[in-house]
Amino acid sequence: MFKVPDNQVAGHQARDGKLGPLIDDSGRFYKPLQSDERGSNEVAFYTAFSSDARIPDHIRRFFPVFYGTQPLKASDGSGLHPHLILQDLTSNRLNPSLIDIKIGSRTWYPEASEDYIKKCLKKDGESTSVALGFRISGLQVYESKESGFWKPDKEQVKKFSAEDVRLVLRKFVSSNSIRDSDSDPNCSFASTVYGGSAGILAQLLELKAWFEDQTIFHFNSCSVFFMYEEESVLKGGSSGAQVKLIDFAHVVEGKGVIDHNFLGGLCSLIKFISEMLTDLDESTTEACLLDSEENHICSDN
Amino acid sequence: MFKVPDNQVAGHQARDGKLGPLIDDSGRFYKPLQSDERGSNEVAFYTAFSSDARIPDHIRRFFPVFYGTQPLKASDGSGLHPHLILQDLTSNRLNPSLIDIKIGSRTWYPEASEDYIKKCLKKDGESTSVALGFRISGLQVYESKESGFWKPDKEQVKKFSAEDVRLVLRKFVSSNSIRDSDSDPNCSFASTVYGGSAGILAQLLELKAWFEDQTIFHFNSCSVFFMYEEESVLKGGSSGAQVKLIDFAHVVEGKGVIDHNFLGGLCSLIKFISEMLTDLDESTTEACLLDSEENHICSDN
Repeated sequence: MFKVPDNQVAGHQARDGKLGPLIDDSGRFYKPLQSDERGSNEVAFYTAFSSDARIPDHIRRFFPVFYGTQPLKASDGSGLHPHLILQDLTSNRLNPSLIDIKIGSRTWYPEASEDYIKKCLKKDGESTSVALGFRISGLQVYESKESGFWKPDKEQVKKFSAEDVRLVLRKFVSSNSIRDSDSDPNCSFASTVYGGSAGILAQLLELKAWFEDQTIFHFNSCSVFFMYEEESVLKGGSSGAQVKLIDFAHVVEGKGVIDHNFLGGLCSLIKFISEMLTDLDESTTEACLLDSEENHICSDN
Repeated sequence: MFKVPDNQVAGHQARDGKLGPLIDDSGRFYKPLQSDERGSNEVAFYTAFSSDARIPDHIRRFFPVFYGTQPLKASDGSGLHPHLILQDLTSNRLNPSLIDIKIGSRTWYPEASEDYIKKCLKKDGESTSVALGFRISGLQVYESKESGFWKPDKEQVKKFSAEDVRLVLRKFVSSNSIRDSDSDPNCSFASTVYGGSAGILAQLLELKAWFEDQTIFHFNSCSVFFMYEEESVLKGGSSGAQVKLIDFAHVVEGKGVIDHNFLGGLCSLIKFISEMLTDLDESTTEACLLDSEENHICSDN
């Protein structure tokens, strides 16, 4: 009944006898509670969030549905272990392209221990978090039936520089061979997946408007998660582009202050994506202009 | 010809034989270059900014006008010392109320030395910077001819908690005795100074729109500076409410990334001010409703 999810791109994985999340056939995702306060904190967040009437419906849809907790046989064979029961975000999706982006230039929170803060500061500085206000935690991009997914391993992802991040956000929406580091990603799905009224950028802007106002929670070390289905785009259907928020083990109370750390990082990511769309627009326009100039010269002769 | 400015609320002051800024009668402000790289960095910023055609005029007006540098007899009597020549922001202002707010939850920048980062981290955590995304660096609030200014000293300002900051932002626009910690600030100038189409909130929102887009500079450890004139408000004139940006010793290149640290802090400050205006609106409305209910009861009897 339970199996290891195919579509996990970051976090602990239930492989090789390790503790990790499981899924079932009914569209549920079982996440083992981390044994320290992170586990209980994530349960506390989902419980508080689920029943908080201040969260508008158009924001609630960015969060996985929460079905409670349940003791389950752990994937590491250690016996019963409490699990969060959540919506499986990628159930019913065919070969989804996915990216997990941890938001915030700071992943620690003021109340944490000195050791924890030190560890986070190091990770934030070595990754792109401090520089960009976010870092990529993992991804998979569907290429084709033949070549399957491009899924760089953890060590590769960890080393992403600011330029790598810019490139990966383009590769994420490209149809040409993205493993080949020489070829320029063609961004052929950018306008469908990132752009448009139902695209990822529009969804991020909706989230941004909420973060400018909400002072209920501070989402430390939380990720935005993008999904879409390439085959659906190629068939001319909806891309199924969706943004979700995940990983709430370090959420703390907002105490009447907005989450300026999350908001700043989110705005930086929004700028990366909107700039890409503008650049593509301009290069299309330029190509058209060049084209019409050439035609003009031709008709002159 | 040169004198020590009356209206300085933060930073090094040219008193008791110390090195600090001077002003003259022509509306210029002479800021001694700090001897380490901070001095040369601030000159480099003003020089680059002044000639950068990408800065729109409606943003340029938030910055002090830069007139170059000049060796001047230093206020500490140490002889000639290079000074930045800037616009004196408070010249021609009668008893201005002023507040200097350092923006950003992080005042260090990634390229700084480990020691410098450590020092900043400590200051940011002990002040409200980490929690609120900004901290008050200094202020003066004009009370009356008799009592002059309320100007808490550096040590007091350093200890401001999140609640103190909320209170001080209210005191800044109140006409009742603000030294008295028992009395609630009446916020009688809030709608004129913070609100309205030319008020401080509108100006901050203009800045915010620019920070969502600009990737030229990162304004580390930079302040927004609010000014207004109480006597002008009382006479029914314009409040002269103005926002300026100051202190650019730690500005670095943006390298194509928005200044998410400044933007996050700015959004947090905007939320504090807009919330205050909303609360005041609601309490006015409530008072009106109460009033009309009472009248209703009266007319019933």
